[in-house]
Amino acid sequence: MISPIQTIAIVGLGNVGSQLAKAFDNLAIPIQQIYNRNQAIAEALANEINAQAVTSLSEIKTDLCIIAVADDAIETVIHQIPKSVKIAYTSGGVKLQDLERKENIGVFYPLQSFSKGRTINLFEVPFFIEATDIDFAQQLFDLAWKISRKVQFVDSKQRRKIHLAAVFINNFVNHQIYIAEKLATTYKFDKALLYPLLRETIEKAIENGAYDSQTGPAKRNDKSVIEAQTNLLSGRDKAIYELITKSIIETYHEKL
Amino acid sequence: MISPIQTIAIVGLGNVGSQLAKAFDNLAIPIQQIYNRNQAIAEALANEINAQAVTSLSEIKTDLCIIAVADDAIETVIHQIPKSVKIAYTSGGVKLQDLERKENIGVFYPLQSFSKGRTINLFEVPFFIEATDIDFAQQLFDLAWKISRKVQFVDSKQRRKIHLAAVFINNFVNHQIYIAEKLATTYKFDKALLYPLLRETIEKAIENGAYDSQTGPAKRNDKSVIEAQTNLLSGRDKAIYELITKSIIETYHEKL
Repeated sequence: MISPIQTIAIVGLGNVGSQLAKAFDNLAIPIQQIYNRNQAIAEALANEINAQAVTSLSEIKTDLCIIAVADDAIETVIHQIPKSVKIAYTSGGVKLQDLERKENIGVFYPLQSFSKGRTINLFEVPFFIEATDIDFAQQLFDLAWKISRKVQFVDSKQRRKIHLAAVFINNFVNHQIYIAEKLATTYKFDKALLYPLLRETIEKAIENGAYDSQTGPAKRNDKSVIEAQTNLLSGRDKAIYELITKSIIETYHEKL
Repeated sequence: MISPIQTIAIVGLGNVGSQLAKAFDNLAIPIQQIYNRNQAIAEALANEINAQAVTSLSEIKTDLCIIAVADDAIETVIHQIPKSVKIAYTSGGVKLQDLERKENIGVFYPLQSFSKGRTINLFEVPFFIEATDIDFAQQLFDLAWKISRKVQFVDSKQRRKIHLAAVFINNFVNHQIYIAEKLATTYKFDKALLYPLLRETIEKAIENGAYDSQTGPAKRNDKSVIEAQTNLLSGRDKAIYELITKSIIETYHEKL
């Protein structure tokens, strides 16, 4: 029987860290200690969730410390936390085996985009768990299971692949929306006109799969529309239009 | 006072045409005649909505005929419909002034992605209206207003620009999802793990705007993650990763 995690600290109160802290608190899983580079943020949250805002990472003394900091800060932060504290980080891209610490180090990676002011239903969010030793991995799994029903053990190699897919799903989808919103500004129409189409686009892709959901001039290989649309664009947006159009044409027509 | 459209025919029972026919029928706006190249489809729908399935376009005798056919079939279809029938087409890309017919021709363009088996709430769907003469434009506007609360007059030039934005919002977003789903297949993880992130991505972009919603390695200009992710990809997907990453970096960092 593996003893559960009793006490938790969270380091880094950006979007991921602060949402996790509140989610645990909402589910009556107390967070004992929190730390943030900007101390005012830690103090404000400490009041809200009744935790202690520590001013130095060396003060952390919980069973587990979840660090939700930028990828390139993970190593530095780990070094400042007492060796007796187990550490889990929330990054999709950093390999466990690349870190200097070889014991009591693990991964607690939520596949979601967190932002201040938007509350996420964590129960639907996949959590990917990994740790250097099997007991700690189980403790992290059990902890994640308290806040989500989509918890999996996944190694660093696989986690990076999932993270890559998430870049297309989140970062690149968002950039397409950004270009469309820019067109709305340039051409003086209300960008909100695009939102029913956007919502239907993703619901259709989820229901039928994106391969079968593709429509439009590139899917039909409609050269005259493609040429007319290309002529409306310039610079980066034009290059993106041309490359994605080419990719769609090749996806659906190269087998003919 | 402009007399309202009393009788309607729909030509082309693909996704747009069949959904429009059913939407009108649901709102007790009867469709008198329908036509489809594949006659069996017309007959099936004719039974469902109590319309007449005509076997030749020359038989159409309604006030209005909505043609929901491929862009390059619009001109041919128009020629076969009696001159006394007013015609509106549903395309975003075809300019009104490029068509041979100069009278009683208009546009009834819904900004939505229709598909068989998915029911759309048309009331939220923007309809863009245009016609060669102002009375017919008003008739089309009034008809659209019966099924949607987002009806606007928009000329062909502006409609093409909106259509271009819609290509980014629908076609290109869908292609990003397709690449992510391919990665899930290749790397053997359940693509459904990506869907909570996908839904949150678009809700966040809608709430805060896509510019402010951008996150990820390109936004941070995190060269080591970008390089590692690039190395996982090949071919078209790699080219898309590199170009969109470059575009995001330039969007957020070139002003520094």
